[in-house]
Amino acid sequence: MTDSKIINDPVFGFIKMPRGLLLDIVRHPLMQRLTRIKQLGLTQEVYPGAQHTRFQHSLGTFHLMSEALVSLQQKGVFVFDSEAEAVQAAILMHDIGHGPFSHVLENTLISGITHEEISLLMMDRINQEMHGALNLAISIFKNEYPKSFLHQLISSQLDMDRLDYLRRDSFFTGVTEGNIGSARIIKMLNVVDDTLVVESNGIYSIENYLTSRRLMYWQVYLHKTTVGCENILINTLRRAKQLAKQGVELFASPALRYFLYEDITARSFQSHSEALDNYIALDDNDIWSALKVWQHHEDRILALLSSNIINRKLFKVEVREEEPTAEEITLLKEQISDRHKVDIADCDYLMGVNRVQKDMYNPFDDHISILYKDGTLKDITEASEILNIELLSKKICKYYLCYQRF
Amino acid sequence: MTDSKIINDPVFGFIKMPRGLLLDIVRHPLMQRLTRIKQLGLTQEVYPGAQHTRFQHSLGTFHLMSEALVSLQQKGVFVFDSEAEAVQAAILMHDIGHGPFSHVLENTLISGITHEEISLLMMDRINQEMHGALNLAISIFKNEYPKSFLHQLISSQLDMDRLDYLRRDSFFTGVTEGNIGSARIIKMLNVVDDTLVVESNGIYSIENYLTSRRLMYWQVYLHKTTVGCENILINTLRRAKQLAKQGVELFASPALRYFLYEDITARSFQSHSEALDNYIALDDNDIWSALKVWQHHEDRILALLSSNIINRKLFKVEVREEEPTAEEITLLKEQISDRHKVDIADCDYLMGVNRVQKDMYNPFDDHISILYKDGTLKDITEASEILNIELLSKKICKYYLCYQRF
Amino acid sequence: MTDSKIINDPVFGFIKMPRGLLLDIVRHPLMQRLTRIKQLGLTQEVYPGAQHTRFQHSLGTFHLMSEALVSLQQKGVFVFDSEAEAVQAAILMHDIGHGPFSHVLENTLISGITHEEISLLMMDRINQEMHGALNLAISIFKNEYPKSFLHQLISSQLDMDRLDYLRRDSFFTGVTEGNIGSARIIKMLNVVDDTLVVESNGIYSIENYLTSRRLMYWQVYLHKTTVGCENILINTLRRAKQLAKQGVELFASPALRYFLYEDITARSFQSHSEALDNYIALDDNDIWSALKVWQHHEDRILALLSSNIINRKLFKVEVREEEPTAEEITLLKEQISDRHKVDIADCDYLMGVNRVQKDMYNPFDDHISILYKDGTLKDITEASEILNIELLSKKICKYYLCYQRF
Amino acid sequence: MTDSKIINDPVFGFIKMPRGLLLDIVRHPLMQRLTRIKQLGLTQEVYPGAQHTRFQHSLGTFHLMSEALVSLQQKGVFVFDSEAEAVQAAILMHDIGHGPFSHVLENTLISGITHEEISLLMMDRINQEMHGALNLAISIFKNEYPKSFLHQLISSQLDMDRLDYLRRDSFFTGVTEGNIGSARIIKMLNVVDDTLVVESNGIYSIENYLTSRRLMYWQVYLHKTTVGCENILINTLRRAKQLAKQGVELFASPALRYFLYEDITARSFQSHSEALDNYIALDDNDIWSALKVWQHHEDRILALLSSNIINRKLFKVEVREEEPTAEEITLLKEQISDRHKVDIADCDYLMGVNRVQKDMYNPFDDHISILYKDGTLKDITEASEILNIELLSKKICKYYLCYQRF
Repeated sequence: MTDSKIINDPVFGFIKMPRGLLLDIVRHPLMQRLTRIKQLGLTQEVYPGAQHTRFQHSLGTFHLMSEALVSLQQKGVFVFDSEAEAVQAAILMHDIGHGPFSHVLENTLISGITHEEISLLMMDRINQEMHGALNLAISIFKNEYPKSFLHQLISSQLDMDRLDYLRRDSFFTGVTEGNIGSARIIKMLNVVDDTLVVESNGIYSIENYLTSRRLMYWQVYLHKTTVGCENILINTLRRAKQLAKQGVELFASPALRYFLYEDITARSFQSHSEALDNYIALDDNDIWSALKVWQHHEDRILALLSSNIINRKLFKVEVREEEPTAEEITLLKEQISDRHKVDIADCDYLMGVNRVQKDMYNPFDDHISILYKDGTLKDITEASEILNIELLSKKICKYYLCYQRF
Repeated sequence: MTDSKIINDPVFGFIKMPRGLLLDIVRHPLMQRLTRIKQLGLTQEVYPGAQHTRFQHSLGTFHLMSEALVSLQQKGVFVFDSEAEAVQAAILMHDIGHGPFSHVLENTLISGITHEEISLLMMDRINQEMHGALNLAISIFKNEYPKSFLHQLISSQLDMDRLDYLRRDSFFTGVTEGNIGSARIIKMLNVVDDTLVVESNGIYSIENYLTSRRLMYWQVYLHKTTVGCENILINTLRRAKQLAKQGVELFASPALRYFLYEDITARSFQSHSEALDNYIALDDNDIWSALKVWQHHEDRILALLSSNIINRKLFKVEVREEEPTAEEITLLKEQISDRHKVDIADCDYLMGVNRVQKDMYNPFDDHISILYKDGTLKDITEASEILNIELLSKKICKYYLCYQRF
Repeated sequence: MTDSKIINDPVFGFIKMPRGLLLDIVRHPLMQRLTRIKQLGLTQEVYPGAQHTRFQHSLGTFHLMSEALVSLQQKGVFVFDSEAEAVQAAILMHDIGHGPFSHVLENTLISGITHEEISLLMMDRINQEMHGALNLAISIFKNEYPKSFLHQLISSQLDMDRLDYLRRDSFFTGVTEGNIGSARIIKMLNVVDDTLVVESNGIYSIENYLTSRRLMYWQVYLHKTTVGCENILINTLRRAKQLAKQGVELFASPALRYFLYEDITARSFQSHSEALDNYIALDDNDIWSALKVWQHHEDRILALLSSNIINRKLFKVEVREEEPTAEEITLLKEQISDRHKVDIADCDYLMGVNRVQKDMYNPFDDHISILYKDGTLKDITEASEILNIELLSKKICKYYLCYQRF
Repeated sequence: MTDSKIINDPVFGFIKMPRGLLLDIVRHPLMQRLTRIKQLGLTQEVYPGAQHTRFQHSLGTFHLMSEALVSLQQKGVFVFDSEAEAVQAAILMHDIGHGPFSHVLENTLISGITHEEISLLMMDRINQEMHGALNLAISIFKNEYPKSFLHQLISSQLDMDRLDYLRRDSFFTGVTEGNIGSARIIKMLNVVDDTLVVESNGIYSIENYLTSRRLMYWQVYLHKTTVGCENILINTLRRAKQLAKQGVELFASPALRYFLYEDITARSFQSHSEALDNYIALDDNDIWSALKVWQHHEDRILALLSSNIINRKLFKVEVREEEPTAEEITLLKEQISDRHKVDIADCDYLMGVNRVQKDMYNPFDDHISILYKDGTLKDITEASEILNIELLSKKICKYYLCYQRF
């Protein structure tokens, strides 16, 4: 038996996974669960190829992390073997707490707790099973470990998470020009004063990375059809939850039933394991299964919304610079009410306004430092001759007005 | 509004779908259903990238069909516009009758009817809705239309179905050398006496296509881990059906419940629409949702099998040239019974022998004709200087002995 | 015989070239000459894969032009068949006048005439042979044809020339992230008031195109090693020309000899065909053949410079924001003179300062208009939320100080 | 300074070249010479993308060798660091002795010595300069070193040479289905009794490799247009040599002149360094430069042949199973003589018969052993269920009758 297992990845080719702790993590049921959660949720409604899972993404980040470690070590950045393994373990598990249609769920079935917090709960659980073997990984993940550049490899403007997901999402959606030069960026990474920096000849790759990311945001992640479809799903789950509260019977898997019929908050997760156990049992399949059945529910709103998603009868979506006025929304609801013969109060479920706010780069919170040959450091916004810092860090705000066609 | 819709495909780039009949088919709920059925079922357990859907494959076959039609027309093969549209419609729908984990299902939940027959039932249903617009497409699909080369483009050794799935499965699994030269093969197609043939300078592409296909079969489709995993799923569904027959309560979506608790045969599909309606409602999500719940079922066999799949605790698989003997199987069952403390009679569910039989190429049923410049035709097995006709057409038979590890 | 010839292109796959005028152009000796001229001259010294020829690039621009014409026509932009063929002919020939190492040559062996002017001379020559079949193509190329968007497809910020060369150079250098979304940009092209514009949902592709182009400029085209190597070649040819003027015998092909021993200006090209005939006879091979022989010339400067290129002993290159001072240069020459035992006057040939000036985008000369759904047009610099117009249009100026190592 | 240099390769991405001996070899003038010799000679006349150089190929083989060494070492095959470096050095230099249009040249300008022998002469020269640092590399290259599997990595049915050139030639010609799974094959390599073998689950990859290779042979390397074009070049050089023998003055670089006007045999290379020095000075550029000038030579045959190549007016080529008869050839010459008004004796230069003989696989000389899990070894021809050993090892013989069109 060789000392590593090779996994085929359409993006990076062969990914070598060392036997031992790292392979044990990959094989853990909590990681295998990610094979049933799509990375891009409903994006497949626009890009049919976007079927890749959070599991594949996790393997990809691991691969890039391995390359980054080799590159940094060649430049004389010292990393203990134990640290290397820990940061690889941490990146493998960085998304472990994601639920199905993550952002949708966090606003409907669950409240007051983020997937990042749930990730930590899951890591703790695995760590217990493994008798503390993940202590260092978790410490790096939480940014409590002294060498903070290790944490930055997991979470920062240039972390392996983003380098993988941009490349991977570009690959599977077919938006090929979103492809970023992850290999070149990794080659240009260095560490100065415990901070991850990019060497100055990598500046063009960084500029290109920022515009590619922007392209991916507007062309893929915030594509109006996707946002509109997420809006339908949010409304469907809100409606289902409302019906559940009224005691109406709804088909659901036990795990989904738990989140529909109970009020789940951060406290639920802390006080007993039931919430986490049910969360773990939940994935994309529960949602799709329910939607298919709900199409035929006697509640016309729930049925209409579910059928919308299942049969891809999508909301009309208008993208605006300004927030729609109350009058406009009232008028819209009246029209929907009239056409679809639903109570005006229920029209709230047949439309929505998504406020999408995006700053591509925030130099205060988080920044990309460029390292010059003379040792000086500059923020990319200062170093770049093409990017507009003011615009770049300005929050761009758009309103997606979504509603049932009539 | 332009006269066509463009769909991004990671394999072929932009796929142009003309508005009208063809786009209407793509948007039909029965086609959208294929977005919830993976092309390669459980192959993802070995190749995590194999997440692509039967919907994507259908679009791909449409794209290749469009290219084949252009290529043939340039060579003077006359095709009416109505025929071109019909053959495009037919290839779009050629897999419409597939259910989730198709081959697994056909041996467990359903009996006596194949997905091809169900495809026809579904086409008929859409045709009725469309007031006969699919008459010609269906006639070509059933090979009842006089120009039989049109049917061969849909179903033959060199149909657009295979050309797409080999390329696409190669792409998503990452088994890149399985890539076939679909563009070159299409360029070499011609029609002689109403039969699809390949021009003689395409012979090397055909040889390469045959070995690539073989590579894909053994490296991917019949990979022992996949076969073993399918074996678990077959046993799980058999067990569930047995329990259902005994009146044991099992979690299932209504559609899955229908196939578990009823005895469904070809006759059921013919006699009333209920069977087809439930079949349509079924997809990958129903199976996965059930498996997750069944992990905790009180029937230990069902729970064990379901947990096997969900947590990727796979059967041990031994590939043999000879069929395992009755003694060997008895011994094996005793060991399983002993270790897992299950009744010997139930050990039947914890193991299986899959007889995999594959002839790469059958010159009697179906053949590839090579067209020489002087007008003569030869079968590829005769024309090729490298392939071994005897071996090529010999049925290769392997036995996969799969069983619960102990 | 089919009505078109298929040419394999590693970048775009099969390129279909219609028989008739267009294939005749491709087969013309003046086009075939481009198979002996590399697209990127000395870039291969940094990127060994950059071996592609101007011929390949010309085929690529033709392919993109064909796609752009289809896309525009689908949007209702009317183009006569004769215009389509003419604009395809024009793009095929748009670079026909390039000589070997184009920019190097234009500053040394030839003066007062650009490759664009020579392109026109060559087109005229082919047109005469073809009895005026290229009249319309030439008129479009010269921007004398009323429908000026046709000219813009050949030469503008978004012409097929740039779309091909960025993609192709990215492909062959291996700087994959320089890849631009040519297919998407072409899909977004439209024509308003006889001007080529980009539809507003293409804005992110344009931003990405601008940063990719910038990446390619600094990472590839203006890579300091390439610029340094071009500097050596310029000095070599200057030295050779000086020696020729002094009557020193130099090995050279007849065509190269003509340009070394004669004084060739724009007037030479106009007054008699000899200059053009010799120019046509010249390609990369003449230069490399001469350099190899010159390595052993008794003139030590010529020998040293030639050997530098042949054996890749490259100049040291320092990139500066400020122009090197006269003192610095004097000092440098003294050092070179001292180490290499050459006359101080001749040190001029062993060093050079290249002033590289680049504005990525000049909104006055040339601009990219974005078309909004309401029909309004905005310049990209105004439309983009990320690009900095001031910086973008500011001329960036760098000084490459190149000199013989000592 | 890092301990390695990274070179961009369009095929494999970043190639890491360790500083020290290996980088010194890459930078040696005899290796840099390979940047001026195309890997595929005249194949560009059919596949315009086939511009890649022998230098690129050498880097590629080095990259695969590095991967193969890692893979073997992981399986417990012990290789000393010094052996690893030596085998990497050897593969880098394995093609160093190639001249321009290698096979053409070996039959015209040079006789009695192969490029393999010249490779050794060059390696010896570099080894002397490097004070014996290449002793081990040369010993492995000559198969004189005890661990003979190291030699097999350089030269055998599965050497890194073939793995690279098939993949690379497939990439640059655009014949994408010629792509072989080099990564998978390398992963499957092992060593048994000092012999390189392939593990049994790699059998399908090997079958696919053999048909891909075959595809590349007939579709690319032995494409009739390429063979025809080589025939013209052979005739041109034969004619030039004949004229030289008669004292006719021909334009040529000094190195080419040496081989035209002298009689160069193996003895020339052994007896004095002049032959080797001139050979080293020779590359593609000398041939192309001469051909361009010879177009205008007063010898009509030489002029016609040279013009044929330069302007791509190619010989007509007929591929036959049987050797053309003497009568047929006589008749053909008469027709050529008649139409082109050349002496019948000279018609020998305006036509040619190339006997192309190819056995894909010779189980006696050279074989591929498949290693089964139980430790047994079988030859691929025995192990494969699809390949026809008899046919596979039969010499396929074709006759390419090439002649000036009339």
